[in-house]
Amino acid sequence: MSDTDRTPMEKFVFFGGKGGVGKTTMASAYGVKSAAAGLDTLVVSTDPAHSTSDVFDQQFGDDPAAIEGRDRLWAMEIDPDEEVEHHLMETKRALGDQVSAAMVNEIDRQIEMAHQTPGAYEAALFDRFVDVMQSADGFDRVVFDTAPTGGTLRLLGLPEFLEGWIDRLTRKRERAIDLYEKAAVGNNEPRRVMDGDPILARLRERKAFFEYAGETLREEAAFFLVVTPDELSLRETRRAVEGLADRGLSVRGLAVNRLTPEPEPHEEGRGARYLRARVDTERDRLRELREGFDQPVVASVETRVEEVKGDLLDDVAAELDVGVGRPA
Amino acid sequence: MSDTDRTPMEKFVFFGGKGGVGKTTMASAYGVKSAAAGLDTLVVSTDPAHSTSDVFDQQFGDDPAAIEGRDRLWAMEIDPDEEVEHHLMETKRALGDQVSAAMVNEIDRQIEMAHQTPGAYEAALFDRFVDVMQSADGFDRVVFDTAPTGGTLRLLGLPEFLEGWIDRLTRKRERAIDLYEKAAVGNNEPRRVMDGDPILARLRERKAFFEYAGETLREEAAFFLVVTPDELSLRETRRAVEGLADRGLSVRGLAVNRLTPEPEPHEEGRGARYLRARVDTERDRLRELREGFDQPVVASVETRVEEVKGDLLDDVAAELDVGVGRPA
Repeated sequence: MSDTDRTPMEKFVFFGGKGGVGKTTMASAYGVKSAAAGLDTLVVSTDPAHSTSDVFDQQFGDDPAAIEGRDRLWAMEIDPDEEVEHHLMETKRALGDQVSAAMVNEIDRQIEMAHQTPGAYEAALFDRFVDVMQSADGFDRVVFDTAPTGGTLRLLGLPEFLEGWIDRLTRKRERAIDLYEKAAVGNNEPRRVMDGDPILARLRERKAFFEYAGETLREEAAFFLVVTPDELSLRETRRAVEGLADRGLSVRGLAVNRLTPEPEPHEEGRGARYLRARVDTERDRLRELREGFDQPVVASVETRVEEVKGDLLDDVAAELDVGVGRPA
Repeated sequence: MSDTDRTPMEKFVFFGGKGGVGKTTMASAYGVKSAAAGLDTLVVSTDPAHSTSDVFDQQFGDDPAAIEGRDRLWAMEIDPDEEVEHHLMETKRALGDQVSAAMVNEIDRQIEMAHQTPGAYEAALFDRFVDVMQSADGFDRVVFDTAPTGGTLRLLGLPEFLEGWIDRLTRKRERAIDLYEKAAVGNNEPRRVMDGDPILARLRERKAFFEYAGETLREEAAFFLVVTPDELSLRETRRAVEGLADRGLSVRGLAVNRLTPEPEPHEEGRGARYLRARVDTERDRLRELREGFDQPVVASVETRVEEVKGDLLDDVAAELDVGVGRPA
């Protein structure tokens, strides 16, 4: 193990990037490396294709399970569709408790509607992985094969928004209670109603939840972006770096994946010409990545003909120049 | 021009698929083919990278502009970020007109919040492309380099939802007005208030808008999905076909893009082995596409070393086995 490998790294490590760039492979390889360094490591996959099951040749569910043949390494898979369904039930229950029976149907309709809007999927998934972070006490490190982007990052702005909302609601209530108390001296009922106000309580609970998420992601998490050497991926990576930075989250490095292998010097023909032209183009992209970003390139992984699993996973792990030391 | 080319095709043609599969290339190539068949054709791009500008080597904006050196062919580019901003202003204006000055600030805050949620982007974009469809009278054909998926498809369910909401609101108003009229015989004021109710009017307007969208997409639109020969793309294509079918929208064909070129028979070496292995894997995927989907494969386009533009675009157009006849 090299010195770089011993560099301390945050407890929560995220591998983001657009679909198909190999986030699960990179997250799994980093998990392998972290476990090999002696840290109890959990790999959390949100990939709807459940590719951790392919990588480790083992089925995983919604709870951490030890990976066979690997010490100190666990994995779990979150099913985004189930999360949306669960989130829907949970929200109905939480609000249903607080309103009259007559309003329940109308509320349910509104909640169902909200869950059918674009973005419900991302919101439910975000809730779930904050849950996982909150309950990961038993692990030294938790690795996610995704990172918040676009719409999800906006959720981190919720605490400030909810703050304003809670303040305004509280002031209105206080004024009402004040008037009420002036009219009914000595009656403490209204004050008690406000303390137990279920709407305010729910807003405060959500605010605290998103505050925890924001703080933990800013202070105890490191983000890596997986990039493929094509223009679209570079552009999205730039956008993702900026999006994360806007929310105070720092990207530590770029892991380049799916590089085209170079043909041998003696090879000639249509195929060799095609490969050389691609390798040339990809070299330009790599240069762009090295020179145009503040983050270092922490891996340059060539496309394998076979799926990355078994021993191949250890090969990729060795190519990842990312520290796995205990959080400082 | 072959017989297949003369096959009638709907006025609105969509090329969907995940990011980076080459939707803009396929949409542009189909636009070229449609214009060559004598139809006044508009290519509408929603790609944030404005790749139509690259493909045709010309800058486009928010209004249709004639493409230089191409007869009967126009293009326009929609900027999704600008659309979200525009949608925000528009919604504020529409609701701001209807409420008291005291409520405007609170309403503005709520609308801003709604536009910061995940999905606002998709919703604003959908609004915009329905606008384009409504105002495309001057064209025989309009080609989009995107197709509604996931969250956006759910928007097509809005009419039924709004219907129920409008009905319930209307009944409540009618009851209130009825009581009021019984108390004040001969006074028609309340009835007039209801006829001009701005909230009901807005809901009805949105309902009509989404109804138009649903009807037009079902009856006057054809959908093609661009696929790359990898598992992720196949899986997402299956999901997209099902999502579109659930809403009564039919996918007419699959355009396979980015196939790896085969090396020449004499080539030997690491590069040639890599290419042959990839070509083999991709053949399996192509077979899966041909056998596992009801839709025909309408194109199998190899990766070009150079960007697809200029004459290369005509080559790709020739490889598209998709009718361009006038809508039947």
